[in-house]
Formats: sequence, C-alpha cells, structure tokens
Amino acid sequence: MTDAPVYDKVALIGLGLIASSMFWATRRAGLARVVSGYARSGETRETARRIGLCHEVCDTLEEAVADADLVVLAVPVGVMGAVAMAMAPYLKPGATVTDVGSVKRRVIEDVTPHIPEGVHFVPGHPLAGTEHSGPESGFSALFENRWCLLVPPESTDPAAVARLRRYWEGMGALVEEMDPDHHDLVLAVTSHTPHLIAYTMVGVADDLRRVTDSEVIKYSAAGFRDFTRIAASDPTMWRDVFLTNKDATLEILGRFTEELFALQRAIRTGDGDALHAYFTRTRAIRRGIIEAGQDTEAPDFGRVKVER
Amino acid sequence: MTDAPVYDKVALIGLGLIASSMFWATRRAGLARVVSGYARSGETRETARRIGLCHEVCDTLEEAVADADLVVLAVPVGVMGAVAMAMAPYLKPGATVTDVGSVKRRVIEDVTPHIPEGVHFVPGHPLAGTEHSGPESGFSALFENRWCLLVPPESTDPAAVARLRRYWEGMGALVEEMDPDHHDLVLAVTSHTPHLIAYTMVGVADDLRRVTDSEVIKYSAAGFRDFTRIAASDPTMWRDVFLTNKDATLEILGRFTEELFALQRAIRTGDGDALHAYFTRTRAIRRGIIEAGQDTEAPDFGRVKVER
Ligand SMILES: NC(=O)c1ccc[n+]([C@@H]2O[C@H](COP(=O)([O-])OP(=O)(O)OC[C@H]3O[C@@H](n4cnc5c(N)ncnc54)[C@H](OP(=O)(O)O)[C@@H]3O)[C@@H](O)[C@H]2O)c1
Ligand SMILES: NC(=O)c1ccc[n+]([C@@H]2O[C@H](COP(=O)([O-])OP(=O)(O)OC[C@H]3O[C@@H](n4cnc5c(N)ncnc54)[C@H](OP(=O)(O)O)[C@@H]3O)[C@@H](O)[C@H]2O)c1
Repeated sequence: MTDAPVYDKVALIGLGLIASSMFWATRRAGLARVVSGYARSGETRETARRIGLCHEVCDTLEEAVADADLVVLAVPVGVMGAVAMAMAPYLKPGATVTDVGSVKRRVIEDVTPHIPEGVHFVPGHPLAGTEHSGPESGFSALFENRWCLLVPPESTDPAAVARLRRYWEGMGALVEEMDPDHHDLVLAVTSHTPHLIAYTMVGVADDLRRVTDSEVIKYSAAGFRDFTRIAASDPTMWRDVFLTNKDATLEILGRFTEELFALQRAIRTGDGDALHAYFTRTRAIRRGIIEAGQDTEAPDFGRVKVER
Repeated sequence: MTDAPVYDKVALIGLGLIASSMFWATRRAGLARVVSGYARSGETRETARRIGLCHEVCDTLEEAVADADLVVLAVPVGVMGAVAMAMAPYLKPGATVTDVGSVKRRVIEDVTPHIPEGVHFVPGHPLAGTEHSGPESGFSALFENRWCLLVPPESTDPAAVARLRRYWEGMGALVEEMDPDHHDLVLAVTSHTPHLIAYTMVGVADDLRRVTDSEVIKYSAAGFRDFTRIAASDPTMWRDVFLTNKDATLEILGRFTEELFALQRAIRTGDGDALHAYFTRTRAIRRGIIEAGQDTEAPDFGRVKVER
C-alpha cells in the first residue's frame, strides 16, 4: 500500500530495533519522500548502508536533521537529552521532534529545554518490540495493530500532533493520547516490572549451585523459557528504563512483593483455597488480551504444531 | 510412522491435556494395540467419545485398567494417591504403573503404598505442556523433542523402566532418569516458581485501582502478555503443585526475593552499573536454550511476521 507521504523528510536518530522498523514500515507505506538516518557508531552506520536501511545514512547529526520535517529520537532513554541538545541548532523551523522512549516524564524533562522556539515536540512511545536489538533487527510489521501512545503537553500545536498520529497510523499502529505520569505508571505495570521480574528469575536460575545451568537450559520448556525471552533484551535500554522510571517501578514492585508474600504464606500454611481462587482470577486477563487482538490464542504462543 | 507396539494395552487415567496428547502420540506411532481411557466426570468421558479420544472410554476405573500393561496416572498431583488406591485391586500382575505428575517426591509417597506386589511403579514427568487443559487440548506433537524425566526407585525392575523409556521415545520425547528430590528442585526453578511469579504479576495488574484492566489488556504487548500465558494454566493443577512441592518452591522463592531486593536497591540508589551487569549476564541463558533446541530463535516466539 502506498499512501500520500505524511512528511517530506524524516530523520531517524539512533538506528536500532525501533528506528529500523520505522524505516521499513515508512518505506512500505510510502509515508515519507526521504528518510535519513544517524547512529553513533561507524559500525552501525556501515551496517545500515550495507542493508539499505534509510535512503541516506549520515555521519553527523547536523546532516541527518537538516531540512527534516520530522526528527525521531530512537536512542536509549538516558541519552535523549544529550542528543536533543546536540542536534538542536540544526533543526528546521516548523519541524516536529518526537521520540520513542519507553519512559515519558523523564524524556520530556530532559528534551524540552533544548527544543528551539518554533519547533514542535510531541513525545511518543510505540508499545511494540522484540527481544532483539540493533540495525538488523527491524521489520515493517512491528507496529501493526500495536498501540502507540502520544503524550503531547497541553500547549502543543494540534496540527503537529494530528500529523504524527497519521504517520503512526500509516505504519499500522493504533494511536492514543495519554498523560505522561499515567503513561509511566501503566508501563511500569505492563512492561517495566515484568521485565525486572523476568531478569531476576533468570538470574536466580543462573546462580543456583545445586541446579546447573545446563539443567536449567535442558528443562526450560515447562515455563522458564518464557521468562528468558524478555530477559534477553538490551541491557542498556533496560538500565535506562529503570533509572528513569524509578518511582512507578518501585511502587509496582512494592505491590508485587506484597502479593507474592501473601501467596508464599498460603503455600507455607497449605491454604489451597486461597491459591485456587487466586489462580482462577488471573485467567480472565488473558482472555481479554486475546479478544483485544494483542496476543495469539494458539497454545504456547503458536510455538507448537497442534494437530492430532 | 508406525513402530512395533511397546505395550499391548495402555490405560490413561484422567483425560486432560497430557493424557489426550499421549493418546494421539501413541496412535500416530502405533505404540499400543489398544488404549483405554477413564475420566472422573461423565462430561469428559462424553467429550472423549465424541472426538475419538482413546479406543475405549470406560465408565469405571476397573474396566479401564483391566488387562492393561501400562497404566498412566494423568490426574492432578493431589489426587494421585486416592486414584491409585481405587484402581489397585484391578491391576494386572506384571503391569507397570506410571504417572505424569509435575511433582515427584509426594507422588511417590502417596502412590507407592497402594501398588500391589508384582506390579511395577515407574514415576515419570514429561516436561511439556501448554496453558490449555481438558480432553480437547491434546495434540500428538506435544512431547516431540521435549524431556521426559523418569524417577524410578533403586529397586525397580530395569526392564520395566527400559520399556517405559521406549514408549516415551516413541512419542518423540528425550528421556532421562533423575532422583526425585533433585527433580523437585529443578522443577521449582524451571517451572513452579516462574508460574507463581507470573500468577502474582497478573494478579497485581488486575488489582491496581489506578490502572484499569482494560488498559492492562490494551497495552499488554510490551512484556506483560508473556506472563499471562502461563498464568492462564489450570488452577487445580497448580494449587496441587505448590502444596506438594512446598519446600523446594519456598526455597527458590526465598532466593528470588533476595535477588529482587538487591535489584530494587540498585534502582533506588541509581546504581546503573549493577543493573547493566545483571541484565547482561542473563542473556547467555536464552542463547543456551535456543542452541539446545528448547525454544525458537524467532523474535517474540515467532508471533510476528518478520520481513522488511
Ligand atoms: N526494544 C523495545 O522493545 C522498545 C520498544 C519501545 C520503545 N523502545 C525505546 O526505543 C528506544 C530505542 O530502542 P531500540 O530497541 O531501538 O534500541 P537498540 O536496538 O539498542 O538501538 C539503540 C540505538 O541508539 C543508538 N545510541 C545508543 N547510545 C547512543 C548515544 N549516546 N548517542 C547516540 N546514539 C546512541 C545506538 O547506536 P549504536 O548502534 O551506534 O550504538 C543504536 O543505534 C529506546 O529509548 C527504548 O526505550 C524500545
Ligand atoms: N499441563 C501441563 O502443563 C502439565 C505438564 C506436565 C505434567 N502435568 C501433570 O499432568 C497431570 C495432568 O495434567 P493435565 O494438564 O493433563 O490436566 P487437565 O487437562 O486439567 O486434566 C486433568 C484430568 O484429571 C481428571 N481428574 C481431576 N481430578 C480427578 C479426581 N479426583 N479423580 C479422577 N480424575 C480426576 C480430570 O477429570 P475431569 O475432566 O472428569 O474433571 C481430567 O480428565 C497433573 O498431575 C499435572 O501436574 C501437567
């Protein structure tokens, strides 16, 4: 499908999973006439050139953002401010800057001071990803039927927001607007705390003396392997997420340990009724997710061939 | 493929996910001349008859186990002892009894006293499952390339163990022998604790006032939905697992909360280096699991279509 371009030139700053998926999705739908890209390391820029990622791969931020109508910050949350500061002098008046960071309050605090007069800043976050990272991990369908949350400050030009919305919709996403603090709490529940817990569970298994790593690996199919997928995500990205969404993550972690202790107590005291009731209640959420088209109904995420 | 039958008659007691998968796998590979089945409820027996699950579906334990060379206990761990007691009078001399329960020490304690002289008891546990349950959830490929652990007491007839091993190998499983206490610890790490944690995380999300269930459902694709799969498993099965593998589960839970507190502290104090180091270490385990053929390498468990 080829829609009319939404932007003449889009600049992708950072060329990892999210930016590379944006490029393939933009190209597929014809959403921009030209897409430039910039990454910090020569190695990533070389890879991008080799695989045809972006119409032009630039060696400097200045070249990449020159004349761009939309500039997308797709770097780890902890460096958004520094990158914004470095590129600010070269932004075109009237351009829109957005980001894809997993945390919003902190990115807004770090980036806003560097946005020049006459440039729009519309923070965003596509709720889509995989455990892979880097310039070769992207693919055009990543955002299809996934939510992208936009968190524009109240003073933002509605036309700039509407245009960015059209861009994400063109990449297949469902778009919603949200307040940044609520965003950070929702993500603490649906993403950040689950990731921390998965990392912890994998760390515990790796650490145990009495069960070897090779046993953990061999016998992982009874549940554990599901945790290893999200615990294989990029360490820099996740370090930054926890450091910048500290309060909401700690709040949800507090709730989590409280409930875990209650279940632990039920196990210790042999309270089967409490366990059964708890395990029954949690089933409804999965049904909701499947009905909402946010996961597959196939057993084991469809990893297995189901026939008699 | 059709191998020579390993047993003349196999009796499946309980007709849920595991037993129904065993039937389809047995039939596909021609591992038994006849398979009988018994389930507690008339409803399940009716369903079994309707879908052709088992060559004969029996209304009593007595009929089901009569003349069986292998009897498979495929009921929740908490009722294994009662079912063994009820069927004991009807077991054929020389027959083998096995089970598929997720916990081994307790099943051995509960079942062994009821096994008549001259009948072999070879406890087992296939490390394969999905979040679905009941007679219609089984499929023949469930055990392919998955481990099945046999935990025979030392005095067990080696010929009975070897034959059961051939049966599981015929269904596609990789078979290993293990001591029951070690089994219960390994499973506490690779399955039981991960399930409890997933149930807890889903429970926390469901409980939060400030984030609605519909938000949790909509925005689940950024990690949370992975947890909902295993937290959708059968409540009775899991209640029994935690009640009967109490000590090992509580031990691993203790380790888990210890590590979680250390990470929580690193977040609170802003110790990015500690977080980065932890998240780097846990990546190796996933590579191991993929290399061992115990999970797919495809991003997102292959849920997405990866093309540029
Ligand atoms: N992965 C997900 O699941 C996901 C989902 C939604 C949102 N996000 C957010 O999207 C953003 C990018 O994530 P990603 O998964 O695409 O990351 P990624 O694959 O790890 O790529 C990160 C990119 O940022 C560049 N970069 C890192 N540090 C930099 C710095 N100091 N200055 C300039 N560039 C730098 C890297 O350049 P080099 O290659 O040269 O090092 C790389 O191109 C993050 O803010 C993340 O929170 C991620
Ligand atoms: N699911 C897994 O992932 C998995 C993996 C490995 C091992 N296991 C083990 O395999 C066993 C069976 O699990 P499953 O997943 O196949 O369970 P399931 O699908 O829930 O089926 C359980 C079966 O047991 C029967 N049953 C329940 N209570 C009974 C009782 N008091 N007396 C007689 N029959 C009774 C049920 O009969 P009705 O239908 O008539 O109620 C049903 O046919 C459990 O011990 C479990 O720990 C499960």
